[in-house]
Amino acid sequence: MIPATREEVAAIVVAAGSGVRLGRELPKAAIEIAGVPMVARAVQAMFAGGADLVVVVAPEVWVERFAQFFPTYADRVKVIPGGLMRQDSVRIGLAHIGSAEIVLVHDAARPLVPPFIVDRVIEAVRDGAPAVIPVVPQVDSLRRIRRNWTVAVDRSTFLRVQTPQGFEADVLRTAHANVGDKEFTDDATMCEAIDIPVMTVPGDGLAFKITEPMDLVLAEVIARGES
Amino acid sequence: MIPATREEVAAIVVAAGSGVRLGRELPKAAIEIAGVPMVARAVQAMFAGGADLVVVVAPEVWVERFAQFFPTYADRVKVIPGGLMRQDSVRIGLAHIGSAEIVLVHDAARPLVPPFIVDRVIEAVRDGAPAVIPVVPQVDSLRRIRRNWTVAVDRSTFLRVQTPQGFEADVLRTAHANVGDKEFTDDATMCEAIDIPVMTVPGDGLAFKITEPMDLVLAEVIARGES
Repeated sequence: MIPATREEVAAIVVAAGSGVRLGRELPKAAIEIAGVPMVARAVQAMFAGGADLVVVVAPEVWVERFAQFFPTYADRVKVIPGGLMRQDSVRIGLAHIGSAEIVLVHDAARPLVPPFIVDRVIEAVRDGAPAVIPVVPQVDSLRRIRRNWTVAVDRSTFLRVQTPQGFEADVLRTAHANVGDKEFTDDATMCEAIDIPVMTVPGDGLAFKITEPMDLVLAEVIARGES
Repeated sequence: MIPATREEVAAIVVAAGSGVRLGRELPKAAIEIAGVPMVARAVQAMFAGGADLVVVVAPEVWVERFAQFFPTYADRVKVIPGGLMRQDSVRIGLAHIGSAEIVLVHDAARPLVPPFIVDRVIEAVRDGAPAVIPVVPQVDSLRRIRRNWTVAVDRSTFLRVQTPQGFEADVLRTAHANVGDKEFTDDATMCEAIDIPVMTVPGDGLAFKITEPMDLVLAEVIARGES
């Protein structure tokens, strides 16, 4: 449990992925949505939702270019080169959050996350949850792959996980120190592997992940509607 | 296995749902996307992909209105009132497919399904699969709900299921005759319950399901881009 005084909140924005699936030469996080790079929107949402400091983990050759995306927040944003796997990038980011007691981990590929979701995650950590994730219902039916066959599962028992995920900074450090060679798709799962309970809070459709070209079209329309 | 002669293909378009989650007074399937009702787009995709006959299962009070949505295909579209649950509507629809040997079941809420997906499902049934579903990868991390807690699951072992699903007509009839009181979220799962193997074929992002207002925005943009 974190003391009730207002502690510092750092956000690690993971932006080290390529844009291959989107068919662009740019790294995914540099692609513009209604004129603003995805990663800049993600960083803005972190600040608007209550972060004090943002660490952007970028592809190595893009660090300098990315640093120019945040003129407004220049002194509160650090851009650093990422690692091989997503979890390497988060671990590297953790070394740059200073004395922050709460840390968020957010995908730059979710640039339209509403600030109230960021705030909700931070508040849940403040209220005592060591690990917090925003979740939304699973809309499509699901099947599980078993060897070379698939079987139906009950979609109502599943939740889709979004970001930002929020953590007591020490908890996430411990989780990353204990991860070894195993690959994890998100940080909450990593915490769970060391027996940290994970709390869920309601997420939001706008925190959707941009993966396919169609997602970019949607993001563009929404962003234009908002500006 | 169905004989190699070209047999009749019927599609049941399930359009009996309300528009409650979308915040409209209209039933969901009547909502227009770029000027064309969702259900009319879904019906059009079925014909374009190879269906010979389409049975639209509509909310009872909307049957007459829905029937006016398909002037081009009037003689090849039947609009009938649906049942309480989705599976009741499909069962009712099955009584109206005549001598068709292949039957598709499609959600009107997936109005932008590309005709090549419809064709792919039909061809897989023609090639001998008694039950066929289009699937796409699961992009978000997943958690499973267990009592009042949730646990991480490996998203790479899951597939999201789309429609149209395709069946040998007799197989689907048998599945529906054996279903009893149990509720199923899709027809393939119902077939599986009577030990029919379910084959997967690649689906497509455009076959996404319209559930939230945001999905309507996306559909509108895509449909406008195409027209």
